[in-house]
Amino acid sequence: MVKVGIVVNREKDAEFKLTTEIVKWLLDRNLCVYVYYDLGIKNNNLICTDKDKIYRNSDFVIILGGDGTILGVAREIQKYNTPILGVNLGRLGFITEVEINDIYNALDRVLAGDYRIEKRIMIKADVFRENKCLKTFFALNDICITRGYLSRMVKLDAYIENNLVDTYNADGLLISTPTGSTAYSLSAGGPIVNPTLDVMLLTPICPHSLKSRTIVVSSDDEINVVVDRSQEGLIYLTADGQEGYELVGGDLVKIKRALNCLNLIKISNRSFYDILRNKLKDR
Amino acid sequence: MVKVGIVVNREKDAEFKLTTEIVKWLLDRNLCVYVYYDLGIKNNNLICTDKDKIYRNSDFVIILGGDGTILGVAREIQKYNTPILGVNLGRLGFITEVEINDIYNALDRVLAGDYRIEKRIMIKADVFRENKCLKTFFALNDICITRGYLSRMVKLDAYIENNLVDTYNADGLLISTPTGSTAYSLSAGGPIVNPTLDVMLLTPICPHSLKSRTIVVSSDDEINVVVDRSQEGLIYLTADGQEGYELVGGDLVKIKRALNCLNLIKISNRSFYDILRNKLKDR
Amino acid sequence: MVKVGIVVNREKDAEFKLTTEIVKWLLDRNLCVYVYYDLGIKNNNLICTDKDKIYRNSDFVIILGGDGTILGVAREIQKYNTPILGVNLGRLGFITEVEINDIYNALDRVLAGDYRIEKRIMIKADVFRENKCLKTFFALNDICITRGYLSRMVKLDAYIENNLVDTYNADGLLISTPTGSTAYSLSAGGPIVNPTLDVMLLTPICPHSLKSRTIVVSSDDEINVVVDRSQEGLIYLTADGQEGYELVGGDLVKIKRALNCLNLIKISNRSFYDILRNKLKDR
Amino acid sequence: MVKVGIVVNREKDAEFKLTTEIVKWLLDRNLCVYVYYDLGIKNNNLICTDKDKIYRNSDFVIILGGDGTILGVAREIQKYNTPILGVNLGRLGFITEVEINDIYNALDRVLAGDYRIEKRIMIKADVFRENKCLKTFFALNDICITRGYLSRMVKLDAYIENNLVDTYNADGLLISTPTGSTAYSLSAGGPIVNPTLDVMLLTPICPHSLKSRTIVVSSDDEINVVVDRSQEGLIYLTADGQEGYELVGGDLVKIKRALNCLNLIKISNRSFYDILRNKLKDR
Repeated sequence: MVKVGIVVNREKDAEFKLTTEIVKWLLDRNLCVYVYYDLGIKNNNLICTDKDKIYRNSDFVIILGGDGTILGVAREIQKYNTPILGVNLGRLGFITEVEINDIYNALDRVLAGDYRIEKRIMIKADVFRENKCLKTFFALNDICITRGYLSRMVKLDAYIENNLVDTYNADGLLISTPTGSTAYSLSAGGPIVNPTLDVMLLTPICPHSLKSRTIVVSSDDEINVVVDRSQEGLIYLTADGQEGYELVGGDLVKIKRALNCLNLIKISNRSFYDILRNKLKDR
Repeated sequence: MVKVGIVVNREKDAEFKLTTEIVKWLLDRNLCVYVYYDLGIKNNNLICTDKDKIYRNSDFVIILGGDGTILGVAREIQKYNTPILGVNLGRLGFITEVEINDIYNALDRVLAGDYRIEKRIMIKADVFRENKCLKTFFALNDICITRGYLSRMVKLDAYIENNLVDTYNADGLLISTPTGSTAYSLSAGGPIVNPTLDVMLLTPICPHSLKSRTIVVSSDDEINVVVDRSQEGLIYLTADGQEGYELVGGDLVKIKRALNCLNLIKISNRSFYDILRNKLKDR
Repeated sequence: MVKVGIVVNREKDAEFKLTTEIVKWLLDRNLCVYVYYDLGIKNNNLICTDKDKIYRNSDFVIILGGDGTILGVAREIQKYNTPILGVNLGRLGFITEVEINDIYNALDRVLAGDYRIEKRIMIKADVFRENKCLKTFFALNDICITRGYLSRMVKLDAYIENNLVDTYNADGLLISTPTGSTAYSLSAGGPIVNPTLDVMLLTPICPHSLKSRTIVVSSDDEINVVVDRSQEGLIYLTADGQEGYELVGGDLVKIKRALNCLNLIKISNRSFYDILRNKLKDR
Repeated sequence: MVKVGIVVNREKDAEFKLTTEIVKWLLDRNLCVYVYYDLGIKNNNLICTDKDKIYRNSDFVIILGGDGTILGVAREIQKYNTPILGVNLGRLGFITEVEINDIYNALDRVLAGDYRIEKRIMIKADVFRENKCLKTFFALNDICITRGYLSRMVKLDAYIENNLVDTYNADGLLISTPTGSTAYSLSAGGPIVNPTLDVMLLTPICPHSLKSRTIVVSSDDEINVVVDRSQEGLIYLTADGQEGYELVGGDLVKIKRALNCLNLIKISNRSFYDILRNKLKDR
């Protein structure tokens, strides 16, 4: 019995109107459906549980929302390798796959096996203080180390394995996946990267040095970022701009490709470049 | 009787060694000297008072430190129009005029009237909330409106007089003087401006729109920046990166040229471009 | 008797259809009209003469075409100080003032004295070889010194008066007016400048040095560009991208504000920033 | 018997002083040496022949010169897969491996088998006109399609396979290898790419559109660039900035990874990032 999870951005589906409709559609087809909010539907095949169980037990998860919603899910679902189908409730996204109008057609195709999986690499950042790993973050787009608003600059050394790449005095340093190349990285001056490439980007944000540029490295590389011991003022690590953590001078952040990818269910034949031109038009 | 004020960056002159030496040199020449720390010197011509009185009463003020020290003084001294002589205790600066080794030669020339005044425009920012001016800031370099580290973006409309210039979704928006063009503005991608020009720069920081560029406007223009009412998360105004203030959605920031300039005492014939090439070499 | 000149971009007015119509409208109002092509109209007030005489004798000149058409006229008309009315036959322009649909309304207002003149500074470039001025160019947008397609780089020193600004190894060096800031200069990474400011921009094109940035200088400054004697390969000066001249190693190009401005007849109250947002939308 | 070719940048080794010394060193060790200029040495193991034979028959080729010299050799040697040892006669290069002072130590290590081969991808460009391939170019750094100095812009469509990437109105379009990312591409605003990655970069040069950015694609992709039929003025293709070809409207340029790589003999353990920081210091 196929198990389908549903996660929704509640701001975009007031009173679960769409969600309820989709759940009913799925239950009508005798599928097992996982949700984490009470929809007031009685059906033995409808299981209301926590997000973690949805991500672990579903055969695939429908995400109703936008790219931002997917970022939040991606960081949590990646460890289970469960594929997701991104359904766009707002404007055309880079990661969401289908428009809400096309959802039943899309689900028919998924259930018929008529789809492919596109793997997107994710990155993992371990924060070390005094040789102890204090915290681990995952990101689909990017890990950013950034100054507080009254701190002058972050002072960082970045290494690939043990090779010093550069010393940064900047507003921040952004380590981005190809998926993240069209997000914050692009605003910071980075290049656009085909999302299927096995690379990561290091992009300084407002660097003091005029010579600093984005550096494209292999996704097999381990990037080590060391906060200078003389760092003054507040400094933070953020994951996908959604989770934050305060760093201090001397901290080491080890960034590498996460073990698992995000598995995107792809149905359409839209090329990445079509989406790109479309999205950049308004940007 | 000539009255000379002295202000020092204490981190760069431990135990006031240099300051004391310079004060003695001035007192030996029968000048009246204003300081705001107790140097343990007994002399009727040495007046220990607060900074504000120094700035108001001195014929000119010696600033021992770097460009950062001058920024702090400039915001306070501008209302008295008192000229300053910037003495460089660290690396060559854009604004400091003489190296510490040349100070007595420089002072001889100032006292002999052998100098000129270079006027640097400053900017003034008034923060309005519900039509009430809550706070006023001055800046020699720049006024920045910037997001907190976990806020997604600032959402701002900028107007010149009543004409909409642009709507910004960005990490921040920087309004800079020509003096500030070689500071943070340069890291944010702005052009270099001859410091004697009567212009201001509007530079978006990491704008979402790829079309946003620095806009150079007249220093006679009034720039009105309105924080969008839908603004979420923390957002701040900073003056010269040294003073901060929290803004909220709907706030209006009126930015215009300050009534007074900073009066820099100039002795050398170094052109701005010589300093520029020198400073950029290491940047 | 008011004398009106007309110049048209012939590609945009096949068989002079529009031109003829406008000429008749003017003649009907008993104005004296200057054209430089035979329209087949018999009228004592219609004078067919060369462009130079049109520019010299007209009270104002109507230009039918686009910004490119105006560039060509500007370089020639500036010495006579004759105002122009730019009429847009193509897409909305930065310099053209009225759409073709509004032309008669606009002419009524001009003839009634209900308009203002906006002065746009132009630049003049004198090419010196062995201390002899070989050639003089005028430009409304920009003067560019640029390499041939197989030359490696231009090697130039730029001076403001006698002060070295920078040494450039680049594809080219662009000196632009505020009017030109939204043309080629913008593509080369320069800032947008309010067209009424008295400044010029120096922008390196694809500089080898990563530290090179646009420099904003006073329009009273004289910019001297010296081609390095070791320059290899072909190198050219272009004015507004429309006129060219081959330079050689050792040449000196003196660039300064032209004595005269271009006098634009302004009728609308569209702000520069409205036009800017409109034009950048598609760019 | 080991066969060693030598190619030298004659401007950097006047009268073949260094070349002769190295040739003698090799002959003393009973190696067979290939050169293409008469050094006036009599030795049966010294063969004077044309470049093509040197490239084909040598076990490896010593290149005395700089990165520019290697570019010229790379385009010709790639078809034979013969490794090269780049010896730096000028300033530290990105591609040259040893300083001239270290050459004998380096040769000892090569002859002892104590080295590794670093493969650098190259690109191949076929020019098609009316479905006929007129000309093929190879490049280690980049293929550029660029306008003549008086042409307004190139008008190009770029496709990955059959997917339109973007339509470019620009000074040019640069397709670069990772090796080329630190050459012209960097001046045009492109990112720095680790030279061992399997990617290519598309970078517009001074694009009219402010939204155009470098796009990083897989080196397995075929990039098709079509010159717009309405293209006016002269337009050229250049390979590594050293070879040129005139294009016309309607031409199709097919660009893909060349079958063979350039095989660089590596001896030192300098990381790419060490070289990078060193080279950018002066840039």
